[in-house]
Formats: sequence, C-alpha cells, structure tokens
Amino acid sequence: MHPFDQAIALEPLGDGIVRGHTSERYWNFVGPYGGVTAAVLLNAMLSSPERLGDPLTLTVNFAAPIHAGAFTVAARPLRSTRTTQHWAAQLTQGNDPQPLASAVSVFAVRRSTWNLTEAIPPDIAGLEDSEQYLPFPKLRWPAMYDMRYVRGRVLAENADSLTYSWIRDAPPRALDYASLTSICDAFFPRIFLRRLHLVPIGTVSLNVYFHVDAPTLAQQGLEAVLAVARANVFIQGYFDQEGEVWGRDQRLLATTHQVVWYKE
Amino acid sequence: MHPFDQAIALEPLGDGIVRGHTSERYWNFVGPYGGVTAAVLLNAMLSSPERLGDPLTLTVNFAAPIHAGAFTVAARPLRSTRTTQHWAAQLTQGNDPQPLASAVSVFAVRRSTWNLTEAIPPDIAGLEDSEQYLPFPKLRWPAMYDMRYVRGRVLAENADSLTYSWIRDAPPRALDYASLTSICDAFFPRIFLRRLHLVPIGTVSLNVYFHVDAPTLAQQGLEAVLAVARANVFIQGYFDQEGEVWGRDQRLLATTHQVVWYKE
Repeated sequence: MHPFDQAIALEPLGDGIVRGHTSERYWNFVGPYGGVTAAVLLNAMLSSPERLGDPLTLTVNFAAPIHAGAFTVAARPLRSTRTTQHWAAQLTQGNDPQPLASAVSVFAVRRSTWNLTEAIPPDIAGLEDSEQYLPFPKLRWPAMYDMRYVRGRVLAENADSLTYSWIRDAPPRALDYASLTSICDAFFPRIFLRRLHLVPIGTVSLNVYFHVDAPTLAQQGLEAVLAVARANVFIQGYFDQEGEVWGRDQRLLATTHQVVWYKE
Repeated sequence: MHPFDQAIALEPLGDGIVRGHTSERYWNFVGPYGGVTAAVLLNAMLSSPERLGDPLTLTVNFAAPIHAGAFTVAARPLRSTRTTQHWAAQLTQGNDPQPLASAVSVFAVRRSTWNLTEAIPPDIAGLEDSEQYLPFPKLRWPAMYDMRYVRGRVLAENADSLTYSWIRDAPPRALDYASLTSICDAFFPRIFLRRLHLVPIGTVSLNVYFHVDAPTLAQQGLEAVLAVARANVFIQGYFDQEGEVWGRDQRLLATTHQVVWYKE
C-alpha cells in the first residue's frame, strides 16, 4: 500500500462517520501536513456510498492543530440534484466536539459541452533538468514528493513569489482527486520566496477547483504535474496564494487558492 | 435605508438563527442575485453577538434556486481562537430542511506586520470615461450598480475573457464587507465574453479573500472600486473566474474566485 493511501485511509463507523489516523511520514512542523488533511476530508466524501459524480470544488478551513493519532470525520451531503451534490465535512479528535478542520465541497456529473482553455502553462525545462531541493531537511512531508523547482528559490532573493515546479508522489503513485488535492497544498509558502529567514506560518483556508473528470485525470498516471504559484499580497498577518496544476497535453487539472497566517 | 441594507437585513430569532427576505430590486433571472445571497450569509456572521474580528475568507456554495420571500439563516461559530473564528452558515426556506446555500468563513483579528503587495492594478481610464452598459436591460440587479466596463464587451468578439471595470452601488453607499462581497459576484459571467449568444449559467461556488481591515475598508467611502476578472478554463459544463477588487491608493481590497455552471 502506498504511504499516501495509508495516510488517507478511512474506516466507516456508520452514519457518515469515518475514522482515520495521522501519518508520521506526512508530518509537518506541528501537525500533519495540511494537504493530506484536505485529502482526508475529500476522501470521506469520495468513499461515501451516497457520493454522486466527481469533485468540482473543495474548501478546507484549518481551525486548530491536529494531534498525532486517531481522528474522526463526519461527512454529509447537504443537498443533491440530478447532476450536483453539496457536501460538508468536519474533522474532530477525542472528546473535543469542536472541529479542528472543516470542509465544504461540490461534486458534479460532468458532460460534453463547448470547451475552451484560456490559461497557458509556462514553457519550462523538464523535471530531469532540475534537482530536488528541500530547504527544511528535517521536515518529513516534503520527502514524500519528488519536487523540482524550476523558477524561484526558497529563502533567497527573488524578484517576486512566482514559482514553477514539477511535482509527483514519491514513491510514484497514479494521480487521482485525493492526491491532486494534496499537491495543491505542496507549494512552499510564498512568504519564503520574499523573506530570507523562516517565520512561523500556517494555512488557514485552502480552496481547490477541479477542472477534469475522472477518466481524464487517470490519464496523468505516474507523470509529474507542473505547478505554478504566486502571491498577490502579504498584509497584516495573512498572505494569499494562487496556483495552477497542469497535466500532460497542456491540460489544466486544477486551480487552487489559499490564505496563510504569518507572524512578524 | 439603502436598498442593499434592506436586501441584507436580518431579524434575530435566537440560537444563531436569523430571518431575512429576498429583494425584488436585486432579482436575477430565476432567483435573487447571488452576490446579495453571499452578503446575507456573511451578514448573519457579521451581526452575530459571538463575532470575533473581521472577515478573512468566505466560501458560498449555491445548491438550489432561492424563491421570492422569507428565508432563515443558521450561522454558528465552529471554533474560536484568540485571533481567529471559524464559521458555518446555511440558508433554508419554508419547510425544506436542506440548505439552498451554505457558507464557511474565517474571521480574524488583524495586526501590524511586515507587508508587501505583489499584484499591480491595471492602469485604466477613469470611471467618467466609459458609460454604463447593461446587456440585459430587463434584469433588475445590474441596475443596482454603477458599472463601467473599460476592457471587454459582453456578447461580442473578445480575444480573451479579461475585463476591467469600475463598480459602485447605485445609489452610492459606503463600502463595507457585505457590499464588497456582493461586488465580488457582480462581474458578468466570463462565458458571455467568449460566446456571441446567451447560454444558461449559474454560479455554483463563490470564494472571497478579504485583504483589508475594517478601518482601511471604510476609507473607500463612496468611491467606485476597480474590478479585474478573467477565466482560466471552460470545460464540461463548468468554468472558473478569478478576480481582483482594487480600492483607492492601489490597495487590493479582495481577491475572488468562482465556479459557474453553463449549458451547451
């Protein structure tokens, strides 16, 4: 079993409640890596017998640190139509009734229509032409990705926060909605592109828009995706991030946005 | 009382439940204009006695059409820390227990930090140099805005979906978080920049990141904001939209994203 599948594995307890366990391999500074937590919340919906269609949107708000150990996720469809399904999910631990993370999501049945892609991926060097660079060697989760930055260097002088990078699971794993969600949080925090020293940070809210159906996503297989990310503004303790995740054949797999708390 | 304040007015019923009423003036094709619905959901949190800080993020998912008449909003804080508060809210009507719209939001207490704005507003002609253009003269809500498009023309040939526009409430009203939220949904649907004829559309999910504290926002007063919007992709019945809302002194007030359903 791939470590990512272990990290997002959920045991059904009935009534839309599932139980999971944090993963040491995807550990961040003071809790599990947020991308895996987002994937866990999505997985509670993906694996529900009530599921209709494929993920279209996901918003995850991170309210408090998740401790190492077991957690439960309560996921329920709020409303379903013939082609869409609206979800809410909350992650709790132990006897604390207040959620540590909460999510809303829209699932949809996609169909053939008039299509047009306006965005264009950057024309950059291949994955083989750059090396994995892990600025925080003691941090565990980045080692679970093969991550090659082609533009932008963390904790160095950069003219802006725009980065291009290749990323795929390490060891390789066929891309699906859960792993794509996790990759959407894997861009290094934008503030580390504009400051020369570490400052405390934490993602407050993560948003993912999925732009492909399941068969198209499956075509990506084990190939790395091309990730583009930039910040608009760092102000009064919060900065934003906007990202694109591109797959083979110049296909936009997802766009993603987040707001991150920072200190100082 | 300004029509917008009438449209978002809420009467407390106790236990975090409030009652409101749809506004005829802000009516869209088959229901209330989504920007006002988003503002109503935010207003249920803004007006709560439990509120801590100012809005930082808001996600609203639109599940089904809202009918003309009364509605209730249940808004509750999921978890509060010293400086952040996580909310969930749902809008229902009549005896239907399933929400027609749901929202999650993070509120935060902002503080002085190292700040940097990377994004740059477009250098465009002033509001006075362009005219209000309402492509759907029978539609009521656009008339509630003074909206001047400087780049991009709806239902015409455009090289891309990028638009620049000035917008403010009509009649004028001092900008606040509720009206800024509504403005974030006021960009004309991107597909109308790329198709020459009307197709049915509907916003599925709206995301807003607020980048200013309340005193800064209040400085905008009655002045129009500068709105920038573009789409990345139109595919299999859904397109996205990314937008920026700029205030005076080149201040980025909000960034906003949405996913919109379209037919054909």
